[in-house]
Amino acid sequence: MTFAVIDDDATTAKQIAGTPFTEPEYTGKQWNLDEVRLLAPMLPSKIVAIGRNYADHVLEVFKESAEHLPPTLFLKPPTAVVGPEAAIKIPDFATKVEFEGELALVVGTPCKNVQAKDWRSVIRGVTIVNDVSSRDLQFADHQWARAKGIDTFCPLGPWIETDLDKFELDNLPIKAHLTHDGERKTLQDSNSEQMIMSFGEIIEFITASMTLLPGDVICTGSPAGTAAMVPGDYIEVEIPGLGILGNPVERA
Amino acid sequence: MTFAVIDDDATTAKQIAGTPFTEPEYTGKQWNLDEVRLLAPMLPSKIVAIGRNYADHVLEVFKESAEHLPPTLFLKPPTAVVGPEAAIKIPDFATKVEFEGELALVVGTPCKNVQAKDWRSVIRGVTIVNDVSSRDLQFADHQWARAKGIDTFCPLGPWIETDLDKFELDNLPIKAHLTHDGERKTLQDSNSEQMIMSFGEIIEFITASMTLLPGDVICTGSPAGTAAMVPGDYIEVEIPGLGILGNPVERA
Repeated sequence: MTFAVIDDDATTAKQIAGTPFTEPEYTGKQWNLDEVRLLAPMLPSKIVAIGRNYADHVLEVFKESAEHLPPTLFLKPPTAVVGPEAAIKIPDFATKVEFEGELALVVGTPCKNVQAKDWRSVIRGVTIVNDVSSRDLQFADHQWARAKGIDTFCPLGPWIETDLDKFELDNLPIKAHLTHDGERKTLQDSNSEQMIMSFGEIIEFITASMTLLPGDVICTGSPAGTAAMVPGDYIEVEIPGLGILGNPVERA
Repeated sequence: MTFAVIDDDATTAKQIAGTPFTEPEYTGKQWNLDEVRLLAPMLPSKIVAIGRNYADHVLEVFKESAEHLPPTLFLKPPTAVVGPEAAIKIPDFATKVEFEGELALVVGTPCKNVQAKDWRSVIRGVTIVNDVSSRDLQFADHQWARAKGIDTFCPLGPWIETDLDKFELDNLPIKAHLTHDGERKTLQDSNSEQMIMSFGEIIEFITASMTLLPGDVICTGSPAGTAAMVPGDYIEVEIPGLGILGNPVERA
């Protein structure tokens, strides 16, 4: 197990000494990407998520307008994290488990009370998260910790893009493709421009309360199109420039 | 900073090599307890809490019976943890911040799918937690992560009692004393026998969903008597045999 830098064309993984939080020091070792297994790019000390950050998703899940249900914070436990191609495992008591494709921020430095305009200075990079959610438990429990905190319910990756200027973060397509019975359908097809709270507002809001630490992951909210997955399915979340986060679905 | 074993009469701290998760190996160094500063006895990878586990507290906070609002799970972030005598710091946007004195379990071994009857086998010991909660944010956000996740909102300690047979865990007094304007009043005065979910049921419920790791902390719920604290106050949570967890309250 090692950290590696992945080239822009996503063909080569070059080993680095140390962690992603300092300038990369290359060891000279490298592999073709198809020779290695990518794990979750980070094991966060906490995962802070924004719920209800896309109006169309608020309407589809809660049957209410986003004006009445503004964005809110919740936490996912680090034990829920898995990497690309690891199975999402559904326990038998979770009867309606849905995917939620989202853009995730990875924190780069310990920080508190960050102003919205300075958000980029505390972020190491961006990646993809699938905020897997058991809708039945989410409504039964009121609190979302269990519904969204089951082991394997936080696929993360496939890598962290550290060049924040590489693309327009406020205008990024977010897609999710579900393969069921051999048929692949695109069910989420939205754009980060639909976010209610912007990246800066999210970081200011969280850090007014909580210190963020290097490696902490911020899930920025899911757009509409979420749907149930069952064992045997394969779910892919795709954000251009960030790759595809694909995971099979199994019975726990 | 070191781990130490505290004697039964709570006068001496004996340094150990390693962590609390193996048989203590004494280094020979020791101090009187009044010469040292106790820190939080554990930095958990996650804090899983049971909400609404005492019927009288459900009634006082939610104005509803516990039959309609059964126990639920929520998470507090590790960054909220502070030790004994560290200040609880209230930010200006939290206008009604209450203490919640609770008994906490500290996990001793990685575990999943633990049966209720086996709960003692995965627990390293018990301690006290103050699940500090900003009631205004708790109701405004619906989700409790922010209201209960602000930095310093999880005082923990003063130590971990590792002898689970030392007292009747199902029949432990839980008290909280608030000192305001120089006057000390006992506001929580309950007993763990009032818990709705037992320790075993809690561990079975959580580990059906989440893997617990050594050092993870389980907050088992607050009895009635919670009340608001303001800067200048001093709050003590007392459980006989587990000591007193005392913290001053300050403006952040």
